[in-house]
Amino acid sequence: MSLLLTNTTIVSMDQSDSDYQTQPNCYIAIEHAKIVKIGPMQQCPTADYSQIIDCQGRLITPGLIDCHTHLVFAGNRAKEFEQRLTGVPYETIAKQGGGILSTVNATRAASESQLVELALQRLSALTADGVTTIEIKSGYGLTLEDELKMLRAAKQLEQHASIKVSTTLLAAHAVPPEYKDNADNYIRYVCDEIIPAAVAAKLVDSVDVFCESIGFNLAQTKAVFEAALSHSLGIKGHTEQLSNLGGSELAATMGATSVDHIEFLDEQGVKALAQHGTVATLLPGAFYFLRETQLPPIDLLRQHNVPMALATDFNPGTSPIASLTMMMNMGCTLFRLTPEEALRGVTCHAARALGLQDSRGQIRVGYDADLAIWNIDHPAQLAYEVGTPRLHSRIVNGEICHD
Amino acid sequence: MSLLLTNTTIVSMDQSDSDYQTQPNCYIAIEHAKIVKIGPMQQCPTADYSQIIDCQGRLITPGLIDCHTHLVFAGNRAKEFEQRLTGVPYETIAKQGGGILSTVNATRAASESQLVELALQRLSALTADGVTTIEIKSGYGLTLEDELKMLRAAKQLEQHASIKVSTTLLAAHAVPPEYKDNADNYIRYVCDEIIPAAVAAKLVDSVDVFCESIGFNLAQTKAVFEAALSHSLGIKGHTEQLSNLGGSELAATMGATSVDHIEFLDEQGVKALAQHGTVATLLPGAFYFLRETQLPPIDLLRQHNVPMALATDFNPGTSPIASLTMMMNMGCTLFRLTPEEALRGVTCHAARALGLQDSRGQIRVGYDADLAIWNIDHPAQLAYEVGTPRLHSRIVNGEICHD
Ligand SMILES: [Zn+2]
Ligand SMILES: [Zn+2]
Repeated sequence: MSLLLTNTTIVSMDQSDSDYQTQPNCYIAIEHAKIVKIGPMQQCPTADYSQIIDCQGRLITPGLIDCHTHLVFAGNRAKEFEQRLTGVPYETIAKQGGGILSTVNATRAASESQLVELALQRLSALTADGVTTIEIKSGYGLTLEDELKMLRAAKQLEQHASIKVSTTLLAAHAVPPEYKDNADNYIRYVCDEIIPAAVAAKLVDSVDVFCESIGFNLAQTKAVFEAALSHSLGIKGHTEQLSNLGGSELAATMGATSVDHIEFLDEQGVKALAQHGTVATLLPGAFYFLRETQLPPIDLLRQHNVPMALATDFNPGTSPIASLTMMMNMGCTLFRLTPEEALRGVTCHAARALGLQDSRGQIRVGYDADLAIWNIDHPAQLAYEVGTPRLHSRIVNGEICHD
Repeated sequence: MSLLLTNTTIVSMDQSDSDYQTQPNCYIAIEHAKIVKIGPMQQCPTADYSQIIDCQGRLITPGLIDCHTHLVFAGNRAKEFEQRLTGVPYETIAKQGGGILSTVNATRAASESQLVELALQRLSALTADGVTTIEIKSGYGLTLEDELKMLRAAKQLEQHASIKVSTTLLAAHAVPPEYKDNADNYIRYVCDEIIPAAVAAKLVDSVDVFCESIGFNLAQTKAVFEAALSHSLGIKGHTEQLSNLGGSELAATMGATSVDHIEFLDEQGVKALAQHGTVATLLPGAFYFLRETQLPPIDLLRQHNVPMALATDFNPGTSPIASLTMMMNMGCTLFRLTPEEALRGVTCHAARALGLQDSRGQIRVGYDADLAIWNIDHPAQLAYEVGTPRLHSRIVNGEICHD
């Protein structure tokens, strides 16, 4: 299979300058799902290609990358959302089995194929927004069997949709009821049984921990990261979302590809990210949905040249919004990112957050042919306008998808 | 044409109780684009219908109504959005012809068919969200010819999509450059020439004014409303968005169907709305996009039983978000509406804001057969989750549309 895109306007995201460096009148040649040549139309190859697409000047970006999602789960928390807004006290909701445990119960009760079907609906909203790569976490199973079921469902999406899935084991998301008041034992179970089983089944790329006063402490987080590293997995953290525990610094020091949320990160933490090349992943959907007021330290991250990614954090409890361009808009509106920072956040920096910076997130010879072709005049439109359909098509693994 | 919907779960919005009063196992019989019978499946009619659709228990609401949009315009303000976020001073942007005048210039330069084509793209996002009725304002022409061109484009959408359009003349949106420093003369032109011409061309249902310190004052607003009323048109206002001028009270006293934005409305204004049956239309998209902090007086509106509508206010300057369910979510998240209030805001109360309360916005015998059929279990899901496709189909003018 080979594919030639002609008359493209390339926004490659392959430079770190704060400018789009848009290149009009280019061709992109693709062979075996890789970009093999890029150049001006005057030098467009004349060799045979299985398919030639005239892009008629359309703007092309790397395929968008949603680098932090909890896309696989069953049930929804709409009634809980309604109860809170009608003034039902949190204790009452919790007593009724609300909160994350309601999602755990629904996910445990669901079959793998039910989880796939539910995730595919959510995924269709993201691919319509130009997403070609998605990270998906487990974390609503909290038993070996159910965590692996979630990861298998996540992987299966690649068979049912044109998408690349990066899987993350988040068994350390919450203490399951079976281990109530015994988090240390649960962490041992995660390290000694769940992680090795996920590795043996080849289901996991990275391991994540919810490091928070209402999640797991630093020592527990460290134990999980050590177990992950001993299996050569990537590590990343839900850190500094609600308080400053130091989880981001710990994760960076241990080689995390990203730390996520980080509203409460201080300068010492920012310096640790800079020193270790860790990506700061911003999740404005959760910030919005939880009506948080503490902003992530954007200016410090800029000063220290920490790459910032942006993701949906799609999940039923704190960010039920399946639109990456809405997150780009929220990144600009709520966090005052520039539209260009927002675009880096869902392309080159999101790739780095997943350890995929050498194959994805940029339009570059040798990189995977995963692209988004847009009906827009200027890349800033991606963050500015929301909802109006603007995607012309995606190129995934070197093939065109008209979603 | 007749249509029978069987096995529906009806959320009729025909009661003012604060409960959905969901009715399972019902049929809805439709003839000549009107609902002619509703009842339990045990009494389902056996007569011949042109089409019978088994809804398999799906939830049906009135078709959603977006009662405040500026859907018709040319150009976009993405570069201005980017400039503001990169620190370019407002004066510089204004000198470059930014702001509303850039939209006016682009809209004047566009042909009617170009305006239709651009609006259809935006409309497709709204209909995918279940919208069957949309209000569209002029206001980027600001000459007789260009205002009428906008209204004709708005009306034309009914020929190209399954939608009912309510048109509003908003010539009093801004003072055009031709009348700089001479707003009173422009208002005379609006009253004496634009309104009569729009009436003669049968292009207008209502007249709107931007009543604000940066818009038009109370006397100018009153003059426009009087001209509108003399032609038996409906009236409505952009009022109390940035300050409290008393425009809402004026509009209510004169018989406005709705006053819109109203962040700065005080109790006297709320009482005026209650007394005159005026709808308070909340526009959380503009509140979000402008990062406003002054919340509309939701509790006062509740206390005085003022019906609250919710709309996108879709426009290029302050609310470029084409999703009515996102607005329902923002209504709940930012304004603390309940999901049920949010649903009333886009059905029965939105219909009232357009003077259509006797034919739309409820599922009721004698009402227009404009419905939305959903793949959800509970109506609260409409406000809770965003993006994931959940619309099964719309019924517009008695016919099914698979968008
Ligand atoms: Zn998360
Ligand atoms: Zn408006």
